Amino acid sequence: MAVNLNLPAAHAVPGVEFVTLCAGIKSDGSPDMVVARVDERSCCAAVFTQSSFCAAPVTVCRQHMMKNQGFVRALLINSGNANAGTGELGIAMARSHCEALAAALSVPVESVLPFSTGVIGQLLPDASMQAGIEKAGKRINGISNGEADWQSAARGIMTTDTLPKLTSQLVQIGAETVTITGMAKGAGMIQPDMATMLSYIYTDAAIDSADLEVALREAVDMSFNAITVDSDTSTNDACVLLATGCGKRVEKNADGWSEFNTALQRVFVDLAQAIIRDAEGATKFISVHVTGGRSVEECKVVGYAIANSPLVKTAMFASDANVGRLLMAIGKADIPDLDATLVSVRLGEVLAFESAGIAAGYTEERGSAVMSRDEIDVTIDLGRGSFNATIYTSDLSHDYVSINADYRS
Amino acid sequence: MAVNLNLPAAHAVPGVEFVTLCAGIKSDGSPDMVVARVDERSCCAAVFTQSSFCAAPVTVCRQHMMKNQGFVRALLINSGNANAGTGELGIAMARSHCEALAAALSVPVESVLPFSTGVIGQLLPDASMQAGIEKAGKRINGISNGEADWQSAARGIMTTDTLPKLTSQLVQIGAETVTITGMAKGAGMIQPDMATMLSYIYTDAAIDSADLEVALREAVDMSFNAITVDSDTSTNDACVLLATGCGKRVEKNADGWSEFNTALQRVFVDLAQAIIRDAEGATKFISVHVTGGRSVEECKVVGYAIANSPLVKTAMFASDANVGRLLMAIGKADIPDLDATLVSVRLGEVLAFESAGIAAGYTEERGSAVMSRDEIDVTIDLGRGSFNATIYTSDLSHDYVSINADYRS
Repeated sequence: MAVNLNLPAAHAVPGVEFVTLCAGIKSDGSPDMVVARVDERSCCAAVFTQSSFCAAPVTVCRQHMMKNQGFVRALLINSGNANAGTGELGIAMARSHCEALAAALSVPVESVLPFSTGVIGQLLPDASMQAGIEKAGKRINGISNGEADWQSAARGIMTTDTLPKLTSQLVQIGAETVTITGMAKGAGMIQPDMATMLSYIYTDAAIDSADLEVALREAVDMSFNAITVDSDTSTNDACVLLATGCGKRVEKNADGWSEFNTALQRVFVDLAQAIIRDAEGATKFISVHVTGGRSVEECKVVGYAIANSPLVKTAMFASDANVGRLLMAIGKADIPDLDATLVSVRLGEVLAFESAGIAAGYTEERGSAVMSRDEIDVTIDLGRGSFNATIYTSDLSHDYVSINADYRS
Repeated sequence: MAVNLNLPAAHAVPGVEFVTLCAGIKSDGSPDMVVARVDERSCCAAVFTQSSFCAAPVTVCRQHMMKNQGFVRALLINSGNANAGTGELGIAMARSHCEALAAALSVPVESVLPFSTGVIGQLLPDASMQAGIEKAGKRINGISNGEADWQSAARGIMTTDTLPKLTSQLVQIGAETVTITGMAKGAGMIQPDMATMLSYIYTDAAIDSADLEVALREAVDMSFNAITVDSDTSTNDACVLLATGCGKRVEKNADGWSEFNTALQRVFVDLAQAIIRDAEGATKFISVHVTGGRSVEECKVVGYAIANSPLVKTAMFASDANVGRLLMAIGKADIPDLDATLVSVRLGEVLAFESAGIAAGYTEERGSAVMSRDEIDVTIDLGRGSFNATIYTSDLSHDYVSINADYRS
């Protein structure tokens, strides 16, 4: 059961078409292939997992992005199989799938980006993939512009997700409206490292490659690079920001950039939070705010130490106002010269700990009242600087164990 | 249910006396205070948690160790309350408890070391502690040497442990026999950081402080600093090596040192493994061997990345031969320039992965046969050096969640 996962309705982005189908990769017969075709004016920026064991499609994406200078025409996404840990054969397959789609759509092969998510360490069923691509090519060539089904596409990239993650923002810039719509998947193996689980954010704005890159990195840092379900980093993480160029031109440091950027970051944060709200086994949505740090980096280290602690996460599951486990997690974060007497801890609005001891007036009852909520804010003030960061996480429940003892990912 | 926790019978160490009693700190009335008095010739070395939020007794121990130059006469240990996150008041209490015991035993206050384990963030019940210390003093003054009850002491320091952890080695050096007996507690909040959960290793050998320090650090590195239950580091970790001097003199680089050191390390490793065998909710005892690294440090980083991954641990619980999750964990370990094509993975004796792909001849059946055991060896060869390290861990089960959702630690 996802925790308060309510996203605004999604608006179609001019210049993006989708085909979603069942290629037979998932054994339960649910949709497992999504092809996106984008306008020829499109420009794209992307970030990928830092894993040493990055998946074959990530390798091919990186090679194509080196060659295409951001000019992308199609995304080929399959769920159910990650094509990771599959060696040279896996890379050859990812390439041949791009070639097949490029031929079907009459676009250059390096303008096709492949993405996979699902089981690691098994070869993709090549015949099913090829048949699916052929079918997708025929269907997309029959689509008239704008008929893309965004809901189905968001469902087609799901694995252990219980709900699709799809959200929109409309930005008014002068007389024109720019649309930003993004989708993401992911519920476990979530602590993206300079990247994210599969997520795709589209806008009809016309944006240069360099500006797109800057906007992407800023937005990723405050969204997908600020969440954790289980501290585990996928082999397949990828985040793509794609501007179709069908709408208004937006440039960094020019009019409208700030409005565009704010709306873009809102889409990113909403999608990242949606992943946490739908985290495997989640019963709580937890925001760990770390303030008063000497750098954003050390605030994130403390935030992740708390958000990844199994003992903190089981206490959250139990609605236990266990301040001791929060102190433990801060203590292990290895912050040089941290003065414990300056650190304070708040549960929601309740001050629980300061001056190296339990705060005056704090009671278990007041702490427990906060912890019994399904949305919990924990605020740690490090008392040594002016930087801050927020990490979003879920609790550790019996369902998390059940899901991951049963599911082969 | 502990996993194959069978330790050799413990031998009493000449020069060590124990009193174990119920001081009323644990609410269930089980033993919660242990006082050890040691011979006046005793020499002691100790390491403590690196947590920024180290507990009050850790602060006092460090201060006493600075002053006493290793000459220790008594250990005062309570379970049920960690005296951590308790500020100046907690430190003052720990000091006054040392003073009370020092007065009762007529020893200098700085020769008394205090230790606490249990709930974090609550003040110790001072009156119960003082009454317990008075009782312990009277009883220990009535003990004749050698009547110490080691089993009761090992039980008296337990918290969520299901079994006491107590083990011995006898070392023949020339015509004399040296005894080494150690005890430890701990089952959760276990990833010691240059220290360990509470553990106390006694020998009757006569050893200088500098030699004792070297032996302690070497033994800790391969034992308590190579285990993890849940990646969480306690505020109270402490490991004490105490030589009573009642027996044979042993010196570094002299005859018998090597035999002594080997037996000592065996005691440390047995106790560290005992903590993992009795880990909260454990159904498997898992040894992660990392070989072929450029340094011991990078082997440990990879070992911990695997041993702390919730997805690896839930797969272990399910006896799932999920090689993909092992690759994921190696991949996220952030080893610079790791060449994935040189990495191999073995489950037990079965080669599962090499040359960036599934190994020839590997089958799910062969992998699953290994994973269904209750003792599982995983071997990762990094293929880039000659260093290696082993990390011991447990699986992540429903019982781990239940224990930590219920227990206030």
